[in-house]
Amino acid sequence: MIDVAMFSFNKLVVIGVGLIGGSLARALREQPGIGGARCVIGVERSAAALAHALALGVIDEALTGADEAALRAALTGADIVLLAAPVAQTGALLERIAPWLEPATLVTDAGSTKSDVVAAAYAMLGAKVGQFVPGHPIAGRETSGVGAALADLYSGRNVVLCPLPENTPEAVGRIAAMWRATGATVHEMSSAQHDRVFAAVSHLPHVLSFALVEQILGSPDAALKFSFAAGGFRDFTRIAASSPEMWRDVCVANRTALLEELDAYSAVLAHLRAAIDAADGAELEAIFARSREARSVWQPGSSPA
Amino acid sequence: MIDVAMFSFNKLVVIGVGLIGGSLARALREQPGIGGARCVIGVERSAAALAHALALGVIDEALTGADEAALRAALTGADIVLLAAPVAQTGALLERIAPWLEPATLVTDAGSTKSDVVAAAYAMLGAKVGQFVPGHPIAGRETSGVGAALADLYSGRNVVLCPLPENTPEAVGRIAAMWRATGATVHEMSSAQHDRVFAAVSHLPHVLSFALVEQILGSPDAALKFSFAAGGFRDFTRIAASSPEMWRDVCVANRTALLEELDAYSAVLAHLRAAIDAADGAELEAIFARSREARSVWQPGSSPA
Repeated sequence: MIDVAMFSFNKLVVIGVGLIGGSLARALREQPGIGGARCVIGVERSAAALAHALALGVIDEALTGADEAALRAALTGADIVLLAAPVAQTGALLERIAPWLEPATLVTDAGSTKSDVVAAAYAMLGAKVGQFVPGHPIAGRETSGVGAALADLYSGRNVVLCPLPENTPEAVGRIAAMWRATGATVHEMSSAQHDRVFAAVSHLPHVLSFALVEQILGSPDAALKFSFAAGGFRDFTRIAASSPEMWRDVCVANRTALLEELDAYSAVLAHLRAAIDAADGAELEAIFARSREARSVWQPGSSPA
Repeated sequence: MIDVAMFSFNKLVVIGVGLIGGSLARALREQPGIGGARCVIGVERSAAALAHALALGVIDEALTGADEAALRAALTGADIVLLAAPVAQTGALLERIAPWLEPATLVTDAGSTKSDVVAAAYAMLGAKVGQFVPGHPIAGRETSGVGAALADLYSGRNVVLCPLPENTPEAVGRIAAMWRATGATVHEMSSAQHDRVFAAVSHLPHVLSFALVEQILGSPDAALKFSFAAGGFRDFTRIAASSPEMWRDVCVANRTALLEELDAYSAVLAHLRAAIDAADGAELEAIFARSREARSVWQPGSSPA
């Protein structure tokens, strides 16, 4: 049961009307009993995506984003602006909206890395940086685009906010209330902590999975290997079918934390290599048993550690 | 439609009556119209497993394996002996059965590594090594033990045979016919090739998956990391819940091929690390796109390479 009375808005501007932005718009528009005018403006580079969003009723007004006067008009009187374009565009988008941000407008984002977004916010928003509350909804689907947007995409999912010292408690509370109104659970941590956590449990596994397919592709008996690959390979490499552009951007944006996790992983791998080379079955079994125990009791949202 | 006329037997001895051995016994016993007396003898260290196998009708006679006279009696007149105990026991089992192997008896195994099994066969069987046809059925379930054995476990699955120069074509053909009678497709390759292929697509991914859980467990913010791990982590680490004992044995038995694959993988990872460190988006995207293309078109039994 969601307490929809906790959140109302008059004008929401969604920049990047795909799966993530479209799902927030749908969730907020389709909540029963939400007060306010509930006008949702979509800003997108893709005219086709905008037309699709309008046709689906996800947004009320569409803006291709190239027109400065239209962007200014869209931001006038806006309660909240969500940046949901690819994370590499965040700096450029903040630079464009900065001049037109009114004091009462809050900005948040949906980027899967946070330290780079925070750095861009300080660089582009200057004295207005307190209006920007960095965020990351942990949700996705195999499909993308506004046609895949769901009103309940965030229901039961986690949203991480990484508040800045310049954010007022009211600003953070309002963005948190917006996400709670979609059915999500909201957590707070620092952007550095966020980036370490997701480097470890998401970004690194993607790199490791891409790397295995790349290694097999480059080996002399690649065809034979692929043809005998089975269930373990299938699950391990499912994420190697992810978007190359998105993961390129994530790896670059979060490279500091990702390299730390990658180096820590390589140290574990070197230790395992030495144990294999020495035929040290006891050490291998101890590590495998520890991992198995942790992985067997793990469930999404829980920790065996 | 399986041509069951291609395979008949009088006496099958299964050493290790778990999922793998039990499923072969069930498949062969439950084929309609197979000729011969179809007596299946189960040999097992676990009295409970033997009693369970008898109760399920998987085997006709049970032998705990400690009694030499009983083992000799079991092997007398045996058509085929399948070694389906943990692969680390293969050498000791071959040594025990060697004195009692009659010239007409064929021996095969189900071990997931082959070079070590072949070395044990030469060491333990001596002049009788031609009676041993090394094999590896590529099948498994999350559950183990004879209670999980299925008559159709091998239906549509692959079985790899790694014939020895000492094997006659008739011996290889008879073991192949046995597996085909279970519905499996039989392939032949050298044991070295087998071990390289499975090191790459099975053994290495298991090591990499165990290593990720081990790394997170050892990090200062392990609990936070596990609690935000989601679908990518879940799939990548599913195989980290595998049997520590089995994977210890596989890593030790196949360490030569596994270390080669691990070193090749580490080289790919070092290349990716350099690209991440240099923020070389173009190189990262090229590698990710190659992997994604290959993984997207891959299906079990096919090759995109």
